[in-house]
Parts: sequence; structure tokens; C-alpha cells
Amino acid sequence: MPFQRRIDVVLDSVKRLQRIGASANLLNLLQKQRPADLAEVLGELSDKNRHDAFNLLLDRDSRLAMEALMEYGVEPGAGLLADQPPERLALWLLDLPSDDAAALIDELPEDVSAAVLERMRPHESGEVENLLEYDEQTAGRIMNPTVFALSEELTAGEAIHALQGSREVEMVFYLYVVDERRHLVGVVSLRRLLLVAPETPLQRIMTTDLISARVDTDQEEVAQHVANYNLLAIPVVDEENKLVGIITVDDVIDIIKDEATEDLYRLAGVSGDEHVFTPAGESARKRLPWLAMNLVTAALAAFVVRAFQATIDEVVMLAVLMTIVASMGGNAATQTLTVIVRAIALGELTWGNSRKAVLKEAVVGLGNGLALGTVGALVAWLLSGNVYLGAILALAMVINLLVAAVAATLIPIALRALKVDPALASAVFITTLTDVFGFFAFLGLATVFLPYLERLG
Amino acid sequence: MPFQRRIDVVLDSVKRLQRIGASANLLNLLQKQRPADLAEVLGELSDKNRHDAFNLLLDRDSRLAMEALMEYGVEPGAGLLADQPPERLALWLLDLPSDDAAALIDELPEDVSAAVLERMRPHESGEVENLLEYDEQTAGRIMNPTVFALSEELTAGEAIHALQGSREVEMVFYLYVVDERRHLVGVVSLRRLLLVAPETPLQRIMTTDLISARVDTDQEEVAQHVANYNLLAIPVVDEENKLVGIITVDDVIDIIKDEATEDLYRLAGVSGDEHVFTPAGESARKRLPWLAMNLVTAALAAFVVRAFQATIDEVVMLAVLMTIVASMGGNAATQTLTVIVRAIALGELTWGNSRKAVLKEAVVGLGNGLALGTVGALVAWLLSGNVYLGAILALAMVINLLVAAVAATLIPIALRALKVDPALASAVFITTLTDVFGFFAFLGLATVFLPYLERLG
Repeated sequence: MPFQRRIDVVLDSVKRLQRIGASANLLNLLQKQRPADLAEVLGELSDKNRHDAFNLLLDRDSRLAMEALMEYGVEPGAGLLADQPPERLALWLLDLPSDDAAALIDELPEDVSAAVLERMRPHESGEVENLLEYDEQTAGRIMNPTVFALSEELTAGEAIHALQGSREVEMVFYLYVVDERRHLVGVVSLRRLLLVAPETPLQRIMTTDLISARVDTDQEEVAQHVANYNLLAIPVVDEENKLVGIITVDDVIDIIKDEATEDLYRLAGVSGDEHVFTPAGESARKRLPWLAMNLVTAALAAFVVRAFQATIDEVVMLAVLMTIVASMGGNAATQTLTVIVRAIALGELTWGNSRKAVLKEAVVGLGNGLALGTVGALVAWLLSGNVYLGAILALAMVINLLVAAVAATLIPIALRALKVDPALASAVFITTLTDVFGFFAFLGLATVFLPYLERLG
Repeated sequence: MPFQRRIDVVLDSVKRLQRIGASANLLNLLQKQRPADLAEVLGELSDKNRHDAFNLLLDRDSRLAMEALMEYGVEPGAGLLADQPPERLALWLLDLPSDDAAALIDELPEDVSAAVLERMRPHESGEVENLLEYDEQTAGRIMNPTVFALSEELTAGEAIHALQGSREVEMVFYLYVVDERRHLVGVVSLRRLLLVAPETPLQRIMTTDLISARVDTDQEEVAQHVANYNLLAIPVVDEENKLVGIITVDDVIDIIKDEATEDLYRLAGVSGDEHVFTPAGESARKRLPWLAMNLVTAALAAFVVRAFQATIDEVVMLAVLMTIVASMGGNAATQTLTVIVRAIALGELTWGNSRKAVLKEAVVGLGNGLALGTVGALVAWLLSGNVYLGAILALAMVINLLVAAVAATLIPIALRALKVDPALASAVFITTLTDVFGFFAFLGLATVFLPYLERLG
């Protein structure tokens, strides 16, 4: 059955069982689901029903409930836990891998998280607290400190025996080899381990040329490494090259999704940590600075129009047509900007090949400017009966689309070279620029050729 | 050494060796690099140098060259191969996994790809041709048909033995179990295999509840499955549930990146298959329809302004300020649209919880409209000396931001319900809507209250 259909069937049953209050049946149904499916179902329920269903499962099968919670998302997940007493929270969090527990604790209110850490302390080796000491968005913060490593003194046979005894073998992708002080010295593939004679020392068969991340490596760089080299996991080492954790590809997928969201958001002037159900007050506050900036830049464009007030007073039709020039420039600029920012994010566009990109975009802007300017000119001519007005509109559109293309290419490339996030050259700036320039080109040309337009009134 | 720094060092050496024509040294350097690093270096070279370096490597180490080509990207990679004779192309493609070969062949010119397939036919079992028969963007098209499977008749010991003899064991993540007609019946984890006695039958230890994709499953759905369930690979079956291939997580990462690009592009009116270095003519042609549509909608907004020509004729200041109302509405709408479209893509926003989203966005729009409208009113008052003009601007901004928020939420949700890609509710439509509505609200209010504004002229 297709994924969504299957979820819908489960969801319908959950709703029905909740309606008739059949808790035992509901629990039975929930316990049969996979964590990811439970997360999907939770997301579709109303706030009250979500709390009820989650708490029911948490009481009886806390491990499954916590796993579903992680799939549901760290931020909304923490919200589901917020009203639970710290001592119970601590117990449930101990069931999770340290990196997941740390991520959740980080989202809890300050006083709750302190109380929870206090209660977790006697039960574990401080792993969660250690993780929370690394900076956000670094490898150290997101790694799983429980990593399976083999001593370089072992033989292949001993390694297989160690593997059989390990609790974490389910997630062993690569077998990392460490020296007696836990410095990362190599990696062995399972295949080699199975192929060689049992008495072969690991040191003879391990690869020493391996890719690792440092605890302070930015998570975006970690994701790029894992994606570029098609890895299933990457080992994390500290300043002394000691193996301290592992980041697996499923976490990398989450990072890639988050970074894509961030790019998309920045282009539109939305902050990266906003979600669709972020409370309205918080969303409004986060979006306000961008809109305020836009108010300033829009006022700038208005000043340009104001400078030509006398011309508009003569030919009011100009006020009608100027909006077309500005709108076309804004949309063409957004197209170019999006292609350029994405190419920078994916590493396809660099300083070295930027001249080629500028030239290409200029040609595209010129071509589409000519094509659409001609159509626009015809429309303006038909509308006003003045052929000069049409010609001026066409010329202004060509100029504006060309400027839009070049600006939308150069500005993000320049920002990147200045080590500023190129996505910050958001639509706000570029569309204002095309507004200002579009108004200026169109109204300026109109002022110069005013005698030819006078007849319009 | 950080990733980018290391690439830069290699790149500098490559450039230097190319300049002095030291081919032997260059080849030596290239052969020491990983495929992903080579791809990075190729991307940074000029067109001519890229061809030269790639052809040098292709002659001596075609396998590494082809692997680097895949990392460089299928589309630009096919461009690097286009001028090679079909018989040599066929040989090099045989070195690649079938799914990679199929993807490359698909990008070659029609006549070249036919000639290449012709020459590959005697050397392989038609795998590549079979893959090309599945629809684009389906699991069948992107799967690797070389998948390691174990017969359900085997014991754990025999399975380990089969594993040791397999060439593909390097990429064995899960051990799929099939019956005598190759129907997929289960999966065994390596851990279980190592833990149980060698004579245990696989049937006793395998899990029969497993997640698979069908050959016709959409690749986006495949990616969602792998991401949701934290899988390293997903088996692909045909209509009869026979195991025909496998899709690994590294391919899923590429899909996730591509889909994120597509969402970003659609919002901006750029087609999904455009790249930063798509030839200018092709880019212009692909972007033209969106811009043409925008010309139509911008003309619509111009008609609205034209309807109030008489009012503007009385108070020219209105033509100056109306652009501010439209611009603010457009930017606020883009913010909302981006958050909503992304939430739909990530599956966070569904029909069930859409009412909550609409309400939230309405509150945000109203709040920011009030805040910025007040500031805008003060500016307009200072600029014109007429307090009524300020009040009208503020009121128009509040109305426009509210309409922008609701429209930018409802339209993508409605498109989604109609099974249309919500990202198609691109900036083009929404910003036109806010233009039309902004002009209408502002100029309409101004017309009603014209007697209070007359003094301005």
C-alpha cells in the first residue's frame, strides 16, 4: 500500500478509537507502528488528541514513544514533553541515544532542562552534558558519542568476535580502528574483515587514508563531506585526533533538508528557525525586520517617482505603465537570483567561473527584455494610441531586465566573496533595486521625450 | 586540512602543471585524488582545461575518470563525453554501475546514445536498456539492478560464506532474502547473522515486515521513505514483488538536493532542469513563459491603476505612494508563501491542520500591517503634509498585508488539495495579486476620501 494511504488508514482508526475512548485498542494499534509512521500520525491529530495519544503510548512503551517523538521533530517534540515532571523526563531521555537526548534537552525551557540534567547525572557518564558544551551547528553537537571502535592490536578474528559482542553493531557501517589512547588511526571494511585469515592483524588490512570531521567542523561542511564522498557515516575526532563520536547519514539527510529550507527562507526574508506553526507573535516579530527594511527601500523607490512628479502630472498614463516595468524587472531578477544563489550553495558557482555566469545572465536578460519589451510596446501603443510611449516602455524594459540580470548575479557572488551568506541578497534588495532602476529608466526617458507624449494628457 | 583549502591546493597544482605542460606529473596528481575531489577540481577549471585534464585521465585510468564524471554531475558530465567515439564510450560506460551508465546515456544526444547502446549490447545483459525503459523520476529508472540477495533456503553459515564470495559485498547494507523465483520475502541484519549458530535457517531469523519500493514509485516518495525510516538502502520490486534492484542512501541524498532545488526554482518561476551554466538561449527560452505570464498579470495591475487615472490626475502624490503599498504586500506575501510551500513539501502542513495555518498567517499579516502601516503613515504625513493621506496609506497597507497573508496560505494549500504542485503558486501570481489588491485598496480609498486630499494637487 502506498505510504500516504497506509498512514491515512492508521490515522482514521486512531481518530475513531479516540472518539469512542477505546484506550486499550488504541494503545495496541499504536504499538504496532514504526516510529516514523507514529510521527506522521501525531502530526495529523489535533493538539489535544496528539497529547492524549502520545501520553498513552509514553506510559506503556516509553522507548517507542520517544523514538516517535524524535521523528516528529525536536522542536515540536520538546513541546509535547514540556508539561512532564523532570524526574520522569530524565528516565525517558536515558532511553534515547545521547545526541537525540541532547537535542531535545536543548529545546526544553531553561529551568526544566537544568532539572532534567540534574536527575540524569547519576545514571550516565555525562555524555549529554558534554555534547551540549559544543557550539550549535557543529559536528560535536550533533554527533553520537557511542561509537564502536576496534583496537589496532586486534586480529581480524578478534575483531569479528568483538563485533559479535557489541550492542551497537546494528549501526556499524565502518569499523574504525584506534590506538591505545583512542587516536583514530584507520578504518576497515567489513568485507576485508571477512575475507582475510582470522589471525591477520588489523593494522595490515586497515586503510589509513580516511575522512573525518573535527568536533568544531560546521555541520553543513560535514553534510557536504558525507554527500560528496558517498559515506554512510563520518567519524568525529577532537583536537588531538581522538575518536569521540560518529555522525550517520540519516542525521546528514536532516541537515541537508534544514540547510535547503534555510536557503529558501533567506531568499524570501524569513529566518531559518521559523516553522509553519511557530506562534504568530514570534513569526511576526521575526519577519518584521525584513519588512521594515523593505519599507525603507520602497520609500527610496517612491522618492525616485516623486522626482518625476511633474512629468507624471503631464502624462498620467506614465503612472499606469511604470508599474509594469518595475514588476517585470523584479520577476526577472528573482529568477536569476534563485539560480545563482542555489548554484553557490551547491558549490557549482565560484569566484573562478563567475564571469561566465554574469555574461550568460546578461544575454538572457537582454534577450527576454527585447522579446517582452516588444510585446509591452504593442500593448502600450494600443492602450494609449501613442507610439512613442510604447517605444519608451520597451526601451525601459530592456534596460531594466539587463540591470536586473547583472545585479542579481554580481551581488550574491560579491557577498560570497566577502564571506557573507549570498542568500541574504534577498528578494527585498534586488526587487527594490529593479523598482528604483525601472522607475528611473522609464520616467527619465519619458521626461526627455515629453514633447512627443504631451498629446496624451 | 579543511575540505575547501585542500581542493584549492590541488587546483593550484593542476593549473600550474597544465600551464607548463607537465602531463606525466599532472596525471600522477589526478590519479591520487578521490572521485569527488576530482569533480570539484574539474568544476573550477576553464572549459578547455577541464576537457584536457579529463581526457588525460580518461586515457590512462578510465574507471577513476568515469567515477569523477558521475560526481561532477550527469548533465555536465555527458557534455564532457559528447565528442568521444561511440565504441570507446561504450567501453567506459561498461565500467560504471548500470544506473549511472543509464543516467549518462540518457543525457547524450539521441544518435550517440543509440550507437553506444548498440555497442554495449554484446557485453552486458541489457541492464542499462532495461533501466531506460522505466519512466523518468521513478524507482525503476534510478535503481541499481545489481543487488545482493540470499536464498531463503540458506543457513546463517551459508549466508556468511555467500557474503564472502560476493563482489558487491562492499555495498551490502541489508541482506535481502528471496524465494526460488526471486520474490522478496525478508531481510536479515548482519548482527543476527553473526550472532546465531551457523546452522540456523535464514527463514527463522529474517524479518518479513520490510519496506520496499516498486519500480513505478515516484523517486520523491522513495526519498521520503528512506529519510523517514532512516534506511541505508531500499529494495525495489516489480509488480510481482520480485527483487529487481536497490536504491542506496547516497542516491537518495542527490534526490533530496534536486527536489529542494526544484521547490526553490518553482517559487521563482524557473524550470527545475535549469542550471547555472545552461546555455543562455535555452535559459532565456525556459524563463520566458513565466515572464510572459507576469507581463499579462502586470498589465492587469496597470488596468487597475488606469481605472483611477482621474484620481491620480487630481493628487499625483498617490502615484508615488501606491508603489510602497504594492511592494510591502509583495514581500509579505513572499515570506508567507515560502513558509507554507516548504511546510507542504516537508509534509508538515496538510489539509487537516490548514485552518490553524491560515489563522496564524492572518494574525501575522494583521500585526505587521499595523506596525508598518503606522510607520508608513508617519512618513507619508511628513512627506505630503496631509494627515489623511497618511491614514489612507496605513489602512491600505493593513488591508493588503492581511490579504497577502491569507492568499499566500490558501492558494498553495488549495493547489495541493487539487493535486497540483503548490510551488507553482509562484511569486508571479501572488505578487500580482498583492499589486492588484494594493493598488485597488489604496487608490480606491483615496478616491472615496478625495475631498480631504485635494489640497495636495
